[in-house]
Amino acid sequence: MSQIYNRVALIGLGLIAGSMAHAMRRADLAGEIVGTARSEESREIARRIGLCDRVTDTAAKAVQGADLVVLCVPVGAMGAVAREIAPHLAPGATITDVGSVKRAVVEAVAPHLPDHVEFIPGHPLAGTEHSGPESGFAELFDNRFCLLMPGEDTSPEAVAKLRGLWEGLGANVEEMDVDHHDLVLAVTSHVPHLIAYTMVGVADDLRRVTDSEVIKYSAAGFRDFTRIAASDPTMWRDVFLNNKEATLEILGRFTEELFALQRAIRTGHGEELFDYFTRTRAIRRGIIEAGQDTDAPDFGRGKDHGKAAS
Amino acid sequence: MSQIYNRVALIGLGLIAGSMAHAMRRADLAGEIVGTARSEESREIARRIGLCDRVTDTAAKAVQGADLVVLCVPVGAMGAVAREIAPHLAPGATITDVGSVKRAVVEAVAPHLPDHVEFIPGHPLAGTEHSGPESGFAELFDNRFCLLMPGEDTSPEAVAKLRGLWEGLGANVEEMDVDHHDLVLAVTSHVPHLIAYTMVGVADDLRRVTDSEVIKYSAAGFRDFTRIAASDPTMWRDVFLNNKEATLEILGRFTEELFALQRAIRTGHGEELFDYFTRTRAIRRGIIEAGQDTDAPDFGRGKDHGKAAS
Repeated sequence: MSQIYNRVALIGLGLIAGSMAHAMRRADLAGEIVGTARSEESREIARRIGLCDRVTDTAAKAVQGADLVVLCVPVGAMGAVAREIAPHLAPGATITDVGSVKRAVVEAVAPHLPDHVEFIPGHPLAGTEHSGPESGFAELFDNRFCLLMPGEDTSPEAVAKLRGLWEGLGANVEEMDVDHHDLVLAVTSHVPHLIAYTMVGVADDLRRVTDSEVIKYSAAGFRDFTRIAASDPTMWRDVFLNNKEATLEILGRFTEELFALQRAIRTGHGEELFDYFTRTRAIRRGIIEAGQDTDAPDFGRGKDHGKAAS
Repeated sequence: MSQIYNRVALIGLGLIAGSMAHAMRRADLAGEIVGTARSEESREIARRIGLCDRVTDTAAKAVQGADLVVLCVPVGAMGAVAREIAPHLAPGATITDVGSVKRAVVEAVAPHLPDHVEFIPGHPLAGTEHSGPESGFAELFDNRFCLLMPGEDTSPEAVAKLRGLWEGLGANVEEMDVDHHDLVLAVTSHVPHLIAYTMVGVADDLRRVTDSEVIKYSAAGFRDFTRIAASDPTMWRDVFLNNKEATLEILGRFTEELFALQRAIRTGHGEELFDYFTRTRAIRRGIIEAGQDTDAPDFGRGKDHGKAAS
């Protein structure tokens, strides 16, 4: 794979930026990778492990001369970063982001950007519960989707280049509308995370009753929830605050259905439960057929990315 | 490991019984493994793949001369099976089960059993979303807990033998009170499963809105839910109908907390969300420290038990 950008600036050095750095090197996609993070500790770690070719102390410095700038900060910080870097962006540069929410990011970022750059919001559908500059690994995006949300006046050449980068990182790239993205992600990611957080919170309350048994005997179901609920708190706070409308809509549907099942349990309607559980089983098959998961019953025991667990 | 039982009868040939058969052979724990299943298809598959040394057409035949009988049928079928096998049980035999609910099983099974056998309820905390006679694999119980719930008048020798079997199967054995079991499992397993089923059901409704996108773009959170929600419908129907009280109690706490988070989202109280998510992250560390999961960010990609995915 030949180099697609001369200089890529990664703003924020967490799981996604770190994995992008590793994966860009794997396929030699960038002439130079420059990174920066708000916290001095993160910058120090990134320097120590050689995550980027160069680590700068400010975002303004990082973007200088970069033909691609990737905003990898929490959704709530995107606006401030855009304002900071705007005067320093190179003419013709492409600005993208990796935020889990898109409407709010577009509204926070776009007004700050000069006319001589292209802004293409993006969202790689990949992650783990780990965070920080040491959590990234080159395989994170392999065979995952990356959604791009170009505007109507974005240059097709800029979109093609960014698409090429993500494909080089291992992802399958699709384009989508900004608002549609936020609804689909509310269903597939945001509300499931909120529910997992809640269930783990309930268990934590009960731990006072049952000592450490809730942890000790955490069977498959709960263990998977704790994995989800261990994700970065700042990132997820910002997701919910910035995708409020879709999250609340899906939550409303969720509690409606949960109450129906709860009533079936209370009244002993086994057939209703059985039919519901049979229906949900089918959706799993669809996911496996779509290649978005394996059929192996590993239940969190797998260890094919051990390197990243730092 | 030397043989602990001369003849083990497995009643029901699903994931747990199949895995027990494989693991008993791995460590040579039983002189003969006899199995039976209600469905002729399951019996045929078991014969074809050689799951047991012998497959009988009825449970009554399977238990003859067995010094250990393991009830591996859904919780709702335990009573009927106990009634069927009771006249055929060998004196001194131990009867155990692997049901996910214990109070209801004790009440359904114990009254049928003759005085000359020992009944020791059990529950291995292990599973995958797969079911049927081909889903088992020898490693399922390795380093998982198996809970035993002996009564006050159970012979210590019988308990020691059954404990030895489970340890030979790879499990860590602990004893627990029947009702306490049902509460702990409601938190760690039953309610998480119900929630996962519900979320996948909501997504299924929405699929009509968003075509196949919900499946296609199923990010980590939702993908883990679909795995849980693909579990055996009959088994889970019976779990909820038979652990009604604890399930409804924990569900009540869950919806209470969910509504609090929902209000925090609606009113924009980011600090409340951040504090909650930070607290739940800690519980995950406890689970990893307890050795009940790995720290590897595999998110369902691992494939170390591929053999079982038939």
